[in-house]
Amino acid sequence: MTTLQDLETPCLVLDRARLDRNLTAMRTRCQALGVSLRTHVKTPKSIEIGRLAHGGATGPIAVSTLREAEYFAKGGFRNILNAVAIAPAKLARVAAIQQATGSTVRIVLDSDVVARAVAEFARDQTGAPIEVLIEIDCGEHRSGIAPDDPVLLDIAAHLAKPKVRLAGVMSHGGHSYASADPAEIRKVAGIERDSAVAAARRLRAAGHAAPMVSVGSSPTILYADHLDGVTEARCGVYTLWDLAQASRGICRLEDIAATVLTTVIGHNRAAQSLILDAGALALSKDISANTFMPAAGYGLVCDAQTAAPLGSLCVNAVHQEHGTVKVPDASWYAKLPIGSLVRVMPNHTCMTCAAYETYHVLDGNRVVDTWGRVNGW
Amino acid sequence: MTTLQDLETPCLVLDRARLDRNLTAMRTRCQALGVSLRTHVKTPKSIEIGRLAHGGATGPIAVSTLREAEYFAKGGFRNILNAVAIAPAKLARVAAIQQATGSTVRIVLDSDVVARAVAEFARDQTGAPIEVLIEIDCGEHRSGIAPDDPVLLDIAAHLAKPKVRLAGVMSHGGHSYASADPAEIRKVAGIERDSAVAAARRLRAAGHAAPMVSVGSSPTILYADHLDGVTEARCGVYTLWDLAQASRGICRLEDIAATVLTTVIGHNRAAQSLILDAGALALSKDISANTFMPAAGYGLVCDAQTAAPLGSLCVNAVHQEHGTVKVPDASWYAKLPIGSLVRVMPNHTCMTCAAYETYHVLDGNRVVDTWGRVNGW
Repeated sequence: MTTLQDLETPCLVLDRARLDRNLTAMRTRCQALGVSLRTHVKTPKSIEIGRLAHGGATGPIAVSTLREAEYFAKGGFRNILNAVAIAPAKLARVAAIQQATGSTVRIVLDSDVVARAVAEFARDQTGAPIEVLIEIDCGEHRSGIAPDDPVLLDIAAHLAKPKVRLAGVMSHGGHSYASADPAEIRKVAGIERDSAVAAARRLRAAGHAAPMVSVGSSPTILYADHLDGVTEARCGVYTLWDLAQASRGICRLEDIAATVLTTVIGHNRAAQSLILDAGALALSKDISANTFMPAAGYGLVCDAQTAAPLGSLCVNAVHQEHGTVKVPDASWYAKLPIGSLVRVMPNHTCMTCAAYETYHVLDGNRVVDTWGRVNGW
Repeated sequence: MTTLQDLETPCLVLDRARLDRNLTAMRTRCQALGVSLRTHVKTPKSIEIGRLAHGGATGPIAVSTLREAEYFAKGGFRNILNAVAIAPAKLARVAAIQQATGSTVRIVLDSDVVARAVAEFARDQTGAPIEVLIEIDCGEHRSGIAPDDPVLLDIAAHLAKPKVRLAGVMSHGGHSYASADPAEIRKVAGIERDSAVAAARRLRAAGHAAPMVSVGSSPTILYADHLDGVTEARCGVYTLWDLAQASRGICRLEDIAATVLTTVIGHNRAAQSLILDAGALALSKDISANTFMPAAGYGLVCDAQTAAPLGSLCVNAVHQEHGTVKVPDASWYAKLPIGSLVRVMPNHTCMTCAAYETYHVLDGNRVVDTWGRVNGW
């Protein structure tokens, strides 16, 4: 039997029961909303978790890199949306993945320049059509065009060409992450939905089919009043949750499924601290939870077995391979002797997990499996 | 001929001429100081760079993880110091690396608890002796013991056992990173040296050989008045340099050897910004350069060919795979059309490079080689 004590630290452990609960809850939620769930696997980046998100099937997924697209296509996922605006130089790789695997890798764009480049590329290639969603800005102002932007119909016209298919529109209410107020998140969810639906209506009124209306972020999907007119929900962080989400009440600490297992490697009594072998690379330097949870530091220190927070201990400082945990009193040196294990809940699970190649899957006290991840580009 | 245009973005490119200049400068500096150079390969994590640091030889190196130790030992490096305090559970892996490769993997500790554990472990194993350095705190107060701490001699006594060898002491003036004042850095360098030398003297006065006196950080090695009594200099960031170091005048922008090649994937005219395909994972969320260079953002945007900064453009915001660059005027959309390449200088090269498996080595405009890296644990 493999237990936590058998693992090399730092490493990533995944609580199977929490994962299953998270995945079931979002499937149920999307059923209630009457939309298809498109899991954004940029968070878990794991074929096993991608399958479990769809109850064991290779259901619809969104990815954020073409390497993810390749990995999941090879893993049998046939319905893939690459949800970051495509660069023309990447079209050959998209086509190659489609040709090698038979999967559909839909792309996203928000400019007429790229729409023209896609049409030209598609005309000259022999594989399956290139399917495109137009990105709609619903208020985050990162990328995408406004639903009433005149260029929307120009883009659609450029895409009305042989071997290209305008599949629809997508919108991402990422600014929902800036709020801890349910009313505000609900409002963002409404605008996200309305923006995407309005853009799809304009396209259809102009004679384009545009069957897909894709929206999402985990908070907006959870808080939306309804998703009428939307066909699918994209969300990823719900699979693992993290402190940034817990800090805003979107999930509970007990829902956080992926944690970093780390060893106490030092007692610095002069500085009243414990030293962990999880530092900036093992935890990431993301401290986004601290806006609404100022005591989160670089992560909450938890019991290795139960994953329950240990007092209010957090990782206060990081160096490349050192994490420093201030302790309120000397009793902690006896509670956590050098060599003992703790687990750290991450600020932002997408950032933290990206440092690891595998999840060690935990069922109670037993490590029952090792699941791969795809990182890089 | 491979050029930057042939690479998939985002990726890591390494300017060979800058690398060579950095490596030569530090070798020359250590010769002038009369100390051996122990390159800290936690920065480059590459066998090729480790060799070049020693003029092509597999010279002394420091590592920060046992996976690095394994990788470099397999790559022929025989003199390795694992410069992070060891946990007792990791001793078997240290011994296994020594046994499999014939390399010496010296370990570091700062407590009598671990010293006892090392002696017990060593007694029962059949391989080469376990060689140990005691970590001395010279003012950073992260880890290590004060040079006059009574426990120093207790630790040494615990290590005076069969199959263990007390190799010496090490100290790291990491708090030199907090200052841009040469006088202050010189002062830290002096204390780093004096602390290590004082601890070694105490050990020798008590009858221990303690031949090694290891100190360093790139800034303290560059600024030290002298290193009398020190045997070796440990430094790593000098190999690649970065904005955090440039921001404090430790290096110049023209010395930064590793940059992230990225593609402009969007023009958000409403938000007056360019969108890059290098975001939080490709750049890291380290913003340490901003203390002394408030306009560094998540990295300076540079010309793809020359690596010269483009105006004062920086990456102002990051999402997982999106980087947002505010532009002062609309002329930048013509200068950097969608699909064009730029390079981003990183805040902290150790963090940024860790997202990549390879360096694409650049000689002028040609990509002449691909070098591997070791990441993870």
